[in-house]
Amino acid sequence: MTDTTLATTFDSLHNPTFLQACMRQATPHTPVWLMRQAGRYLPEYVATRATAGSFMGLATNRDYATEVTLQPLERYPLDAAILFSDILTVPDAMGLGLSFAQGEGPRFAHPIKTEADVAKLAVPDMVKLQYVFDAVSSIRKALTVDGKGRVPLIGFSGSPWTLACYMVEGKGSDDYRLVKTMLYSRPDLMHKMLQINADSVAAYLNAQIDAGAQAVMIFDSWGGVLADGAFQSFSLAYTARVLAQLKRHGTDGKVVPRLVFTKGGGQWLQDMKALDCEVLGLDWTVNLANARALVGGLEYGSGVSGPGKALQGNIDPNVLFAPPEAIESEVAKVLNSFGTPFQGNGTGPTHIFNLGHGISQYTPPEHVAALVAAVHRHSQKMRA
Amino acid sequence: MTDTTLATTFDSLHNPTFLQACMRQATPHTPVWLMRQAGRYLPEYVATRATAGSFMGLATNRDYATEVTLQPLERYPLDAAILFSDILTVPDAMGLGLSFAQGEGPRFAHPIKTEADVAKLAVPDMVKLQYVFDAVSSIRKALTVDGKGRVPLIGFSGSPWTLACYMVEGKGSDDYRLVKTMLYSRPDLMHKMLQINADSVAAYLNAQIDAGAQAVMIFDSWGGVLADGAFQSFSLAYTARVLAQLKRHGTDGKVVPRLVFTKGGGQWLQDMKALDCEVLGLDWTVNLANARALVGGLEYGSGVSGPGKALQGNIDPNVLFAPPEAIESEVAKVLNSFGTPFQGNGTGPTHIFNLGHGISQYTPPEHVAALVAAVHRHSQKMRA
Repeated sequence: MTDTTLATTFDSLHNPTFLQACMRQATPHTPVWLMRQAGRYLPEYVATRATAGSFMGLATNRDYATEVTLQPLERYPLDAAILFSDILTVPDAMGLGLSFAQGEGPRFAHPIKTEADVAKLAVPDMVKLQYVFDAVSSIRKALTVDGKGRVPLIGFSGSPWTLACYMVEGKGSDDYRLVKTMLYSRPDLMHKMLQINADSVAAYLNAQIDAGAQAVMIFDSWGGVLADGAFQSFSLAYTARVLAQLKRHGTDGKVVPRLVFTKGGGQWLQDMKALDCEVLGLDWTVNLANARALVGGLEYGSGVSGPGKALQGNIDPNVLFAPPEAIESEVAKVLNSFGTPFQGNGTGPTHIFNLGHGISQYTPPEHVAALVAAVHRHSQKMRA
Repeated sequence: MTDTTLATTFDSLHNPTFLQACMRQATPHTPVWLMRQAGRYLPEYVATRATAGSFMGLATNRDYATEVTLQPLERYPLDAAILFSDILTVPDAMGLGLSFAQGEGPRFAHPIKTEADVAKLAVPDMVKLQYVFDAVSSIRKALTVDGKGRVPLIGFSGSPWTLACYMVEGKGSDDYRLVKTMLYSRPDLMHKMLQINADSVAAYLNAQIDAGAQAVMIFDSWGGVLADGAFQSFSLAYTARVLAQLKRHGTDGKVVPRLVFTKGGGQWLQDMKALDCEVLGLDWTVNLANARALVGGLEYGSGVSGPGKALQGNIDPNVLFAPPEAIESEVAKVLNSFGTPFQGNGTGPTHIFNLGHGISQYTPPEHVAALVAAVHRHSQKMRA
């Protein structure tokens, strides 16, 4: 993983801490961003969405997507931006017909029910997703100040398995009965769909990289609902298939770190250690000290990244409903649980602070300010 | 844990395999029962419930509860019966007003919202739960054939934390926002509620033991939603508080094994190892070989139970939607993952087969027959 362009990558950013931590390099504070940081808890987001008319109206319009992506950065000193989009754009481009009814989750008009439905699936023409790539380029431009990016921009996709869950269920599910019925009854169909999903996700993320994404994240939101054994065969293997196809550098020649987050995947860290990616995301059930010992890797003085993973996470988003003093104390617990990150000149264990799941729409915005400030303050203190 | 009455306990049953496996003793096959085995997937259950008029009408009537508890045993050669009741009877007895609307989950009319609500909570008079204890005695009688029980009867309760979730949320929840807001904002109130819950659950289970329950199980259905650290303080500690108060023997002097099941608790097995109970339940995300190595304990030739736990679980209930051949192959995978249980004269690692969660109401009853037969057949073959 030696990369001579690393320094250049970081030079092109006012705040490169997120990318540095992804590459397991020392940073002056623990970088922090929040899953779903551009979202309904922000009144300015709600206002823009009202103007756009709908969630898809927002997500498919380059200017709106740019506007809402930057909104949380205006309020909080976050260390990364993440593309405003949805994890289900890829199956939508496959023709499944994505919509978001008011107050409900996503729905597909044409879910995958039969062998014939699976037979019709194919990697979609990326032209259908041009609105996403346009948004990426537009956001990169909007982030540029004095010729440098304020913070890096993260692109993302749902994982092959997570997409399959929605494609078969047609919407969110409590029990994943339909998708698991297919998995256990017709594993051949499920594998076929997952191959197509993996190749689609790889093409999708590569196009985001070409458009300017400086890191890419795979959200395996539903990997944790699988049984031990099934997770490895039906989720992890296809995340690996995506990773194997990903470009390692942007069009500017700069390295693009890859992040994988499996909600509920804490028991499979040992398996995920083998993934060809830089960062593993963790939910709040995971003990960060154990995770660091297991997959955080050793310290290297050579300046290249070792075989370990940077870790991202993992505070319970519900902490944000507590008063600021309680938020501060819970932030300290999470940072202390990881321990002082690597501080030398080579590479070693690093931590990117995040929630263990997307932020709740009911979160008081001023509590987010308290969290971000606490992460920066306490993590600087730990390094002193 | 030496118990001279063990042999006597087993002598009083036609099929003591479940209790033997709980005590980590050898059995000719791996015993199997299913969480929620008396339930809506059985047409005879639906018929009885229709006669009773409602779920609570069913659960609060001794004769109906007896009838539906025995229904699955008429169809399948299950190795244990479990009291038909609900995990929320205790908060109902506290005055929270439990109801089940048609097609919905449980609801409390008076959820716990304020400090004043918590201040009013107290261990309920067990007389209010007499209908449960009457059902236990009635089921024990109904299970008796030729002076011996067909299979043992398991009593149960929700865990203190799981009860608190429902008591604060007022119903099921996606995000546990209200209960976690209390936990993080007012841990003092949460601890007070959990103490009362723990003492109530202990009294409740002890009364079930007095009424004839031959094993008792604590369902920590929502322990897995807690953050690492919070789980240990707010769930595990109060499960331990229950266990510390439980009677070790029934009124007949026979030992009563205690089972603890934390859904989503696979990462905390090392912590749960310290619980003073005989059996740990596992969901389908747990690797049984790892769990056995971690908490299954060693083999002892002395005839007494060692410090290890018997393990219960853990097939994905969605396997039951696959055809019988697929069910059989998944059953074999689960049994093989645990490996051959202890077969000597002392104690050693044992396995009780179960689902990793309650059976779905959409399960085809004939698929349950295939599962139970496969467990018995394959587990006998493993011992040969």
